[in-house]
Amino acid sequence: MDFTIPKRAQEFLPRVEAIVREKLQPIELSVLHGGFNAALPQLRDIRNHVKEMGLWAPHLPAVLGGMGLPLVEHGMMSEALGHSPLGHFVFGCPAPDAGNMEILHKFGTEAQKETWLAPLAAGDLRSCFSMTEPENAGSNPTRMSCTAVLDGDEWVINGHKWFTTAADGAAFAIVMAVTNPKAQRHGQASMLIVPTDSPGYELVRNIPIMGDPGEGWASHGEIWYRDVRVPKENLLGTQGAAFAIAQERLGPGRIHHCMRWLGICERALSMMCARAAERELGSIRGTSRPLANQQIIQSWIAESRASINAARLTVLQAAWKIQNEGFYAAREEISLIKFYVADIMMTVVDRAIQVHGALGITSDTVLAYYYAHERGARIYDGPDEVHKMVVARRMLKEYGVTRS
Amino acid sequence: MDFTIPKRAQEFLPRVEAIVREKLQPIELSVLHGGFNAALPQLRDIRNHVKEMGLWAPHLPAVLGGMGLPLVEHGMMSEALGHSPLGHFVFGCPAPDAGNMEILHKFGTEAQKETWLAPLAAGDLRSCFSMTEPENAGSNPTRMSCTAVLDGDEWVINGHKWFTTAADGAAFAIVMAVTNPKAQRHGQASMLIVPTDSPGYELVRNIPIMGDPGEGWASHGEIWYRDVRVPKENLLGTQGAAFAIAQERLGPGRIHHCMRWLGICERALSMMCARAAERELGSIRGTSRPLANQQIIQSWIAESRASINAARLTVLQAAWKIQNEGFYAAREEISLIKFYVADIMMTVVDRAIQVHGALGITSDTVLAYYYAHERGARIYDGPDEVHKMVVARRMLKEYGVTRS
Amino acid sequence: MDFTIPKRAQEFLPRVEAIVREKLQPIELSVLHGGFNAALPQLRDIRNHVKEMGLWAPHLPAVLGGMGLPLVEHGMMSEALGHSPLGHFVFGCPAPDAGNMEILHKFGTEAQKETWLAPLAAGDLRSCFSMTEPENAGSNPTRMSCTAVLDGDEWVINGHKWFTTAADGAAFAIVMAVTNPKAQRHGQASMLIVPTDSPGYELVRNIPIMGDPGEGWASHGEIWYRDVRVPKENLLGTQGAAFAIAQERLGPGRIHHCMRWLGICERALSMMCARAAERELGSIRGTSRPLANQQIIQSWIAESRASINAARLTVLQAAWKIQNEGFYAAREEISLIKFYVADIMMTVVDRAIQVHGALGITSDTVLAYYYAHERGARIYDGPDEVHKMVVARRMLKEYGVTRS
Amino acid sequence: MDFTIPKRAQEFLPRVEAIVREKLQPIELSVLHGGFNAALPQLRDIRNHVKEMGLWAPHLPAVLGGMGLPLVEHGMMSEALGHSPLGHFVFGCPAPDAGNMEILHKFGTEAQKETWLAPLAAGDLRSCFSMTEPENAGSNPTRMSCTAVLDGDEWVINGHKWFTTAADGAAFAIVMAVTNPKAQRHGQASMLIVPTDSPGYELVRNIPIMGDPGEGWASHGEIWYRDVRVPKENLLGTQGAAFAIAQERLGPGRIHHCMRWLGICERALSMMCARAAERELGSIRGTSRPLANQQIIQSWIAESRASINAARLTVLQAAWKIQNEGFYAAREEISLIKFYVADIMMTVVDRAIQVHGALGITSDTVLAYYYAHERGARIYDGPDEVHKMVVARRMLKEYGVTRS
Repeated sequence: MDFTIPKRAQEFLPRVEAIVREKLQPIELSVLHGGFNAALPQLRDIRNHVKEMGLWAPHLPAVLGGMGLPLVEHGMMSEALGHSPLGHFVFGCPAPDAGNMEILHKFGTEAQKETWLAPLAAGDLRSCFSMTEPENAGSNPTRMSCTAVLDGDEWVINGHKWFTTAADGAAFAIVMAVTNPKAQRHGQASMLIVPTDSPGYELVRNIPIMGDPGEGWASHGEIWYRDVRVPKENLLGTQGAAFAIAQERLGPGRIHHCMRWLGICERALSMMCARAAERELGSIRGTSRPLANQQIIQSWIAESRASINAARLTVLQAAWKIQNEGFYAAREEISLIKFYVADIMMTVVDRAIQVHGALGITSDTVLAYYYAHERGARIYDGPDEVHKMVVARRMLKEYGVTRS
Repeated sequence: MDFTIPKRAQEFLPRVEAIVREKLQPIELSVLHGGFNAALPQLRDIRNHVKEMGLWAPHLPAVLGGMGLPLVEHGMMSEALGHSPLGHFVFGCPAPDAGNMEILHKFGTEAQKETWLAPLAAGDLRSCFSMTEPENAGSNPTRMSCTAVLDGDEWVINGHKWFTTAADGAAFAIVMAVTNPKAQRHGQASMLIVPTDSPGYELVRNIPIMGDPGEGWASHGEIWYRDVRVPKENLLGTQGAAFAIAQERLGPGRIHHCMRWLGICERALSMMCARAAERELGSIRGTSRPLANQQIIQSWIAESRASINAARLTVLQAAWKIQNEGFYAAREEISLIKFYVADIMMTVVDRAIQVHGALGITSDTVLAYYYAHERGARIYDGPDEVHKMVVARRMLKEYGVTRS
Repeated sequence: MDFTIPKRAQEFLPRVEAIVREKLQPIELSVLHGGFNAALPQLRDIRNHVKEMGLWAPHLPAVLGGMGLPLVEHGMMSEALGHSPLGHFVFGCPAPDAGNMEILHKFGTEAQKETWLAPLAAGDLRSCFSMTEPENAGSNPTRMSCTAVLDGDEWVINGHKWFTTAADGAAFAIVMAVTNPKAQRHGQASMLIVPTDSPGYELVRNIPIMGDPGEGWASHGEIWYRDVRVPKENLLGTQGAAFAIAQERLGPGRIHHCMRWLGICERALSMMCARAAERELGSIRGTSRPLANQQIIQSWIAESRASINAARLTVLQAAWKIQNEGFYAAREEISLIKFYVADIMMTVVDRAIQVHGALGITSDTVLAYYYAHERGARIYDGPDEVHKMVVARRMLKEYGVTRS
Repeated sequence: MDFTIPKRAQEFLPRVEAIVREKLQPIELSVLHGGFNAALPQLRDIRNHVKEMGLWAPHLPAVLGGMGLPLVEHGMMSEALGHSPLGHFVFGCPAPDAGNMEILHKFGTEAQKETWLAPLAAGDLRSCFSMTEPENAGSNPTRMSCTAVLDGDEWVINGHKWFTTAADGAAFAIVMAVTNPKAQRHGQASMLIVPTDSPGYELVRNIPIMGDPGEGWASHGEIWYRDVRVPKENLLGTQGAAFAIAQERLGPGRIHHCMRWLGICERALSMMCARAAERELGSIRGTSRPLANQQIIQSWIAESRASINAARLTVLQAAWKIQNEGFYAAREEISLIKFYVADIMMTVVDRAIQVHGALGITSDTVLAYYYAHERGARIYDGPDEVHKMVVARRMLKEYGVTRS
């Protein structure tokens, strides 16, 4: 057992943290609230700086211009990027592009790689991943109404999707659609690459999250597919393989998300400490004490530190297990960290808001953004409650419970 | 001891609930997200209906066109109005107008009543209450930087305020400003009536709450007062009386808020049940069960019901005590209900969101509005932590602790 | 709505509290840990004093020597008695005797009343109630293995019971046994009066609770019934009526328990405050602050006060509803208060222990007794989880969920 | 970073677990409740078996007959031993003997080692550690009333101690007493070896914990030292060094405790699963479902698994840091794990009890023992609240808070 931070990470982490702190945190609020698209030129400049520093695309192999990090180190980098909502975007590994790159890299044809992966990896265009449907529980990727039917050399797609992250401005979507309705449950759907300028593709709206619809990459689209036609060659992987491909995407994606959440936790905890150090609490009785003297705030700080430390080790252990033993061996860990870390994040962010008082609920700090936009963490990829059932049932099998 | 709902409330509550359900809930999202000002004509129509039904202004005496309810019944009505974010506005008792009417009624001169109270009571104009300052802890109304200096026959006001609810579109503000800096702590500030078209009054912005700045009544303003001049007669009550007047405003205001929060709880709980009854949860293993069968959701429903019931009785008991024994006798109860009910509300709303899945975090239901815009409940009027200290210290006095 | 404490209660409550404080609290630890039976003479003296003061048996009509209190006032008295574990015993309304008296009074024959009720009401003998079975879930009174078969003029009882409270030293048991195995589920069992000196009746042991078996009234017995014979006349009520009778016992019993738990809460909260006022917390850094200055302890005190107040009103409202509208109308409330109050009690007791430090876990205060012996509150009469399901399912029916 | 279990631990852990499961768990209840002393011969036999298997005294170097494990592996073994309350005793590393051996080994003279350490290491006698005083907060080892005064060649000790674990039957105590009252705070106390047959040493009682006084090793003594005389040579280490020595004892001790608590967690979780798999929950409505189907129980199982995994990694990381960087570098971690793991343990044990229903509160399973006897974990070695303050204050220093 060895808890040493890997050498390479020791080298790149401070550099990453510095860029996030110095270049992203100062502009994040104006980017997120003032219009993502207007800020693109500015963000491109920082991206170029990141590329020059050799910190672009941690998840991609060197041949695609990336850092080629193994999962544990990638996780560590993801935490550092999580110190700002802009981190992943600027360092070339934003959701859902990062996942899309991974599956294009693994399952794409040479032509697909050339057309879609190369510019995606370079950050020249954006993509989205169109899976969730308003009419079907998001936690069940085997229930889907969207269909794709082969008509000659073209797939004809019809369906209704939402929570298609970053659809606004994406050049193409990877769409999950039922192509083999009579196959067994996990073999019914396929993935299709759909350019967003295809006739019949309509981005209805950016769904307002807690009143804030966002824009550009920082948005979640509702999309109608009405007789959208794409060439046969736009099938990603084999027919009926969507579920299997999605599973491949899941493990590393979970690590990225959880480590990003821990980055959010560290940011929020650090803001909590800074605020406590600089602010006085006026009491109704007229006396005042520095917030940092408040024992309740001290206990929030300590409890947050303990939870974050524990959660980080759990996620890194899961990453290490995926890296060494593969996704299947680590599936219990992958389920566990989902609900475990999401809950801690929401708690830490909520405490940080409370310590900030009225300021905390305004958009004048990043905390309110996290509070509103990360609440989904306990819901997407399957609500916490479902993951808990999955974990418990697997455990209970060892005690002879075959069906629960 | 008698827990019977008062006769009169038994009569008006179903009528109020019906209007809220049938006329307000269907339009609330478009009003709140689509622009409050554009919706004003529509809201005025419903207001007229409310007046015709004799349900206008529960907190005002009949002579001012109100229902003249005692505090307990007023509280019950406030809960019913809380079933929609528009309830209080449409029934003529929105914050901060309701509180402003109360103090104008109690402390205003005849001229002030005629000029400001009459049209306010009729719903012909709106007002705001300008107390909180970004630089001073909001929980301490005796620490204030805003000043008003008498210059001849005019007060000259300078200061910086924020979280001035409903400033956008208000005809006048009641401003708390230091007029007697050398007086003892509770006698330094006065209240002044400031027309919002006074030179030097600047509404800088509606402060975005979780990314949503709101509009019109549904907003919280940041305001600069720069050499704003108002006639001497605009002093409300006597000089240095601001704290005492604010205390008068506090007790009933606390009851209104807490009962409104319970209205929110009931709305959220009802949505939770309805969603659980109609929605299936897809599990990752492919099976599906109706949400209503999920034991965790059942336990959330039952725990919410228990907490809401208990909280309601506590608030009504506090209202009853204020009504019968006065504010001072009930001050412990008034502190207690603040943190007790706010916490329950946030928990119930959070559960309702979780039951709604992805839908819950969108602005397609009212839940996200509550989640974002009511988070402040644990902060404004003094953060929960301060109220807990106040309660405990008062209790500890009986055990000989003189200073803690 | 009227929250005034009833006149009569205003009169008797201080008197009850004084006796508990002055006569019971000083001896409770030596009675509970030093041997209940040895303390009986001492307890009988106090009982006589209680009788002289006219405070004996609040639940019984005057004709049986009791105070004849309606349920709300009885509840209030139960809270006051809960300030010591000995309260209910000394005031003539201990579980399970109180419940047994109620059903003997309601369902007993004249002969049964004369033989069993009269001396029970006078406190001359004790009884127990033998329902729970180790092999069957205690929360389901319709699943029972114990049987009673009529053989000539005698019932022959066979079965295994446990958690038969106060069996040690009881003169008779009221036993639930299946007499009509083919009847519908709620009509299978009957209640039988079984003198504990009947051949075949064996009190195997007092079950150690957290290592402490207790003694006498303060104990829970495990009992074997092996061919125990009682005369036909010992049937209580009609054959197959056990479930219906048990239901009758349930409502008031629930009120007594919950109010007793609130008495425990008040005792624990008061000890928490007293300890905080008198004790210093040494910090590892060497400084010391009085515990009462610790903000976390202050917040525990305030949160406890808020929860207890809210819980009390909920229970009193349930009592008031039973009193005015009957058990059936109040069944939701009766389920709710069970889990709501039990949880609060355990939380308050746990906090009080923590404030007491090492002393808190010793038997040198009553807190450890509560902690160990009241943990069952979340389990007996059906675990909290079952009550939550029951409440939620009833609520969900209104939303069209017929079976969940 | 490498999460592989060390080779050696992979080898010994299954062997340790098997002995605990097969030889200790079956007898633990009868030993703990039936009399520790009577069980000694039986326990000695198992100890001999443990020695033969080469699993004796993980914390001691081979030269003293131990396994000589580094801290990480020792921690892993401590968890395995925690699967039964008897584990540490039988494997030669019970508290407080283990800590006493460590300081005798580090600070003892040759004579002290020969007289006290050798037989202690062999398990031929027992010892205790007498620090905590009823009159002084246990969390502050620098406040002490017990004194030792040099009188000729003898120390004369006077003081009152309690929670002296395992005093009952111990051959000697290591006593902390003030010898240099005028020294600076951390240099006032010394450690003295006191044979328990010294005149003036009185073990007043085994303090009942939740009603259960325990016996022999499984007990906590209250002791009066009245003019107890020991030879000058019985000073352990130098004069005034008690605090420094205690600190040495603290780090590894904390690891042992926390890992033992995790062993308790695993035991409780495993019992929870087994019970859920075998037991049906009768519902009040008469239907029954296996407990393992109850979603709430499933969520408890999953949440417990997640917390335990996370906590284990945190403790092992702390152990690894102590092992590699020393106590001082790891002091934040050492404070954190204390409150973090204690809280998880109590939660997991509480859930396990709830799943066991009435059985859970009886002494018929080990759960009630844990519930009652491990409640102290949140109190001893400093209450959780103090550790949280310590952690927060250290963190806040980085934000410029010098005193809070």
